[in-house]
Amino acid sequence: MRELHKLFYPERIAFIGATENITKWGGYLLIYLMDGGFRENVYPVSIGRESVFGLPAYKSVLDIKEEIDLAIITIPAKGVFPVVEECHEKGIKNIVLVTSGFSETGEEGKRLEDELMAYVKEKDINLVGPNTMGILNSHASLYATGANVQSKKGKISLIAQSGNVGTQFLEWADQSNIGISKFVGSGNEGVLRSEDFLEYLADDEDTGVIVMYIEGVDDGRRFLEIAKKAAAKKPVVALKSGRTAAGSTAAASHTGSMAGSYRVFEAAMKQAGIVIVNSLPELLMVAAAFDSYPNPKGNRVGIITLGGGWGVVTADNCEERGLVLPELDEKIITELDKILPSFWSRGNPVDLVGMVNQDLYKKSTELMAESEDYDAVIVLGVINSVKFAEKTFYSAQRLGIQTPFDDVDVKKLLHGSTLDYMDFVIELMEKYDRPIYPVALVITEEDDIVHSKDQSRYKLILFRSPEEAVLCIAKQLEYQRYMDKRKDQ
Amino acid sequence: MRELHKLFYPERIAFIGATENITKWGGYLLIYLMDGGFRENVYPVSIGRESVFGLPAYKSVLDIKEEIDLAIITIPAKGVFPVVEECHEKGIKNIVLVTSGFSETGEEGKRLEDELMAYVKEKDINLVGPNTMGILNSHASLYATGANVQSKKGKISLIAQSGNVGTQFLEWADQSNIGISKFVGSGNEGVLRSEDFLEYLADDEDTGVIVMYIEGVDDGRRFLEIAKKAAAKKPVVALKSGRTAAGSTAAASHTGSMAGSYRVFEAAMKQAGIVIVNSLPELLMVAAAFDSYPNPKGNRVGIITLGGGWGVVTADNCEERGLVLPELDEKIITELDKILPSFWSRGNPVDLVGMVNQDLYKKSTELMAESEDYDAVIVLGVINSVKFAEKTFYSAQRLGIQTPFDDVDVKKLLHGSTLDYMDFVIELMEKYDRPIYPVALVITEEDDIVHSKDQSRYKLILFRSPEEAVLCIAKQLEYQRYMDKRKDQ
Repeated sequence: MRELHKLFYPERIAFIGATENITKWGGYLLIYLMDGGFRENVYPVSIGRESVFGLPAYKSVLDIKEEIDLAIITIPAKGVFPVVEECHEKGIKNIVLVTSGFSETGEEGKRLEDELMAYVKEKDINLVGPNTMGILNSHASLYATGANVQSKKGKISLIAQSGNVGTQFLEWADQSNIGISKFVGSGNEGVLRSEDFLEYLADDEDTGVIVMYIEGVDDGRRFLEIAKKAAAKKPVVALKSGRTAAGSTAAASHTGSMAGSYRVFEAAMKQAGIVIVNSLPELLMVAAAFDSYPNPKGNRVGIITLGGGWGVVTADNCEERGLVLPELDEKIITELDKILPSFWSRGNPVDLVGMVNQDLYKKSTELMAESEDYDAVIVLGVINSVKFAEKTFYSAQRLGIQTPFDDVDVKKLLHGSTLDYMDFVIELMEKYDRPIYPVALVITEEDDIVHSKDQSRYKLILFRSPEEAVLCIAKQLEYQRYMDKRKDQ
Repeated sequence: MRELHKLFYPERIAFIGATENITKWGGYLLIYLMDGGFRENVYPVSIGRESVFGLPAYKSVLDIKEEIDLAIITIPAKGVFPVVEECHEKGIKNIVLVTSGFSETGEEGKRLEDELMAYVKEKDINLVGPNTMGILNSHASLYATGANVQSKKGKISLIAQSGNVGTQFLEWADQSNIGISKFVGSGNEGVLRSEDFLEYLADDEDTGVIVMYIEGVDDGRRFLEIAKKAAAKKPVVALKSGRTAAGSTAAASHTGSMAGSYRVFEAAMKQAGIVIVNSLPELLMVAAAFDSYPNPKGNRVGIITLGGGWGVVTADNCEERGLVLPELDEKIITELDKILPSFWSRGNPVDLVGMVNQDLYKKSTELMAESEDYDAVIVLGVINSVKFAEKTFYSAQRLGIQTPFDDVDVKKLLHGSTLDYMDFVIELMEKYDRPIYPVALVITEEDDIVHSKDQSRYKLILFRSPEEAVLCIAKQLEYQRYMDKRKDQ
């Protein structure tokens, strides 16, 4: 196994190809790196300049006195070889080669890449790329990707065989307040391949969930061996593209990778314990679910809903994904009889018939969470139901109508009740070690998609739709069953 | 066919059960109605009060001098019958019966409902409900739903057999800046059924697309006859829940409707030209696509992408939904040879390899749009790609680094270029009558999901993911093919 720690946790970085032209990689990537936290410990290397962005610049890495853990290279392809030789001479073991114009551009580039990689392999240098979108590690304040996303610290790490898919993922995660540990765009995979990063992240303590975007794999056997070992340690969620003829043609022209027969690959991945999803949005949400929730231990789901229709939609979703909805036991019925109108459904889903009542929300959620009949609970529409009340208040204000709440900070009051409920749900998850998936009635700009509570193992995700929540339950269960089966063997 | 015009376009409304308690339907619904625009022309009816929210109140509708087009009733179930009798006496032909506690609550409620409906049918009154979430018509400033969404004026109309699904849809549409024409929650369908509304909306000039959420249908034959006629006039997009055993059990306890065998129903719906989707988010996006875009005339898709990976994902998506990606013809290749780096893909997807160049964006989009080889064009990542540049600028600012843009309003400049491109794309759609689906690189709070241009037939939607865009193409094509087949017969 390769020693990649210093690649992801460098103390000092040489930035080769530094320029003050902020429309070039050598300009903006350096700015992102500095803005992320690397200032005194980044060493710009530039042939023509004495300083770059106020930092002293060097003609060559050989002029730098301090030890360098990582070199980031952005100079044009033709000049890369001698620079890499200098890196070796300087004792640099890790290189991120951002430069494009190698094998992805045709014969000439391929020759250039082959020569360079032969040298890099011989010298045992860890090289990311060429043609990579960069690298990120929030735990080392290392932000060196084309996206300029300063991801929030977290435990989700992403390996992407496409830079633009990778940066898209980072953007979406950032918008949704989802923490990221590491990202690496594997580029042309001249030396380090996706599976090398997978192997490293499987043992990385700052990584709890591994996410992969895969277009093609060269050494399928090795990939699957490493994948299997990784999946035994933590969840690995993957999206494989190039599934169809059109997709694999596009992939071939893009990274030159062979897409292979998808069905065979998919079956092998599943057997190795990898969780497969079908789209980019799914990739993010399922990763976030693994990062936030305990896994359900079985397929029995309890549903609480503020309105009937959403319960029906969710029940369909559950059954279509192999989940079942056990009936309510006597205890739950008796307890809910006390607080719900006499005509309530007495079934699963529990229909709260639109009642606005914090105690009812808490009580019904706890009854489901503590019951041995359910492995997971879905709560529909309760979170942010108060936003309807808020809107009523504002309508009244506009009309000049007095309400009992005129002297109260309504927004704060209502938001407080939502936070109170969310904290309560996290406590229930801690107490019963069962996941609870809330689908919010509304999600507005004010809402964080991920809600944390101090000193809690688990977090709460505000799901946007029942479909999203059910998908996450099904995928977490798939992984849990894989792990259970492993244990039995 | 029922005459429902005054139900949706009332001039004067009686509001029966008016109260100043804003936590009750009789309070907040009246507030929404007033806030939406009904002030002098709404007549509160209240046994105990002289005035409600500053409006003079009446003991009975019979005390109102003016002619009333619509009565909204919120009083408890037991008192409804005599009030409906008074409505009839007053000559009111349209009633929205919000009140719950009828057949959805059991035997006693069922008896109450049956009695009432027999009377209402005899008197030929148009009654929505009971147990309805209300009614909305943005073209008549009629906002009388539990959601208090003041939908933007538009051409999408929604019929929902679940009030909470309906209001959810209105909320999401509002957040996405998607215009709505009408909404009606059909509730228990005591008199007016979903298909009655469908029949009306098929001929409504303010409705361009009809959306339905269906849990169950009582008279399948009549429903399908009406659906077929409606689909011949405008697109009808439907989500059917209660597809599974779990779902139909939930539906039965919710509205008492029979879910029936889904496969049979689905096949019949498709044969009638109805476009079926699988989830609530899909329902909204597909409706918005029909509302904004010309239909593709065939299944040939051209893709332009800022980065390779997303092109691969989209190519897969296309093939999986029956769309094909014809190769580029000589003309496009020759033209793009002039502006793209020599190593460009020369294939479909056209990979712009991350170049930031407005002329390139416009040129490549027009080449695809004008070509007779493509029926639809997808543009990935171009819109809002400038946000990366914007972030670079802010990073530089934070670091105290001077840039050539220090004296420029960067946000405005960059946003301007995005708007310029979006207007250009709308012009292309007008010119070539071909749909162009842009998937934005990033969507932030500042962005409107729907972009309109004065005097243009078509609008632009910012899709969040390739999957969303491809789904919309496939569904629009499905409808176009249905219409073509009809014409041939």
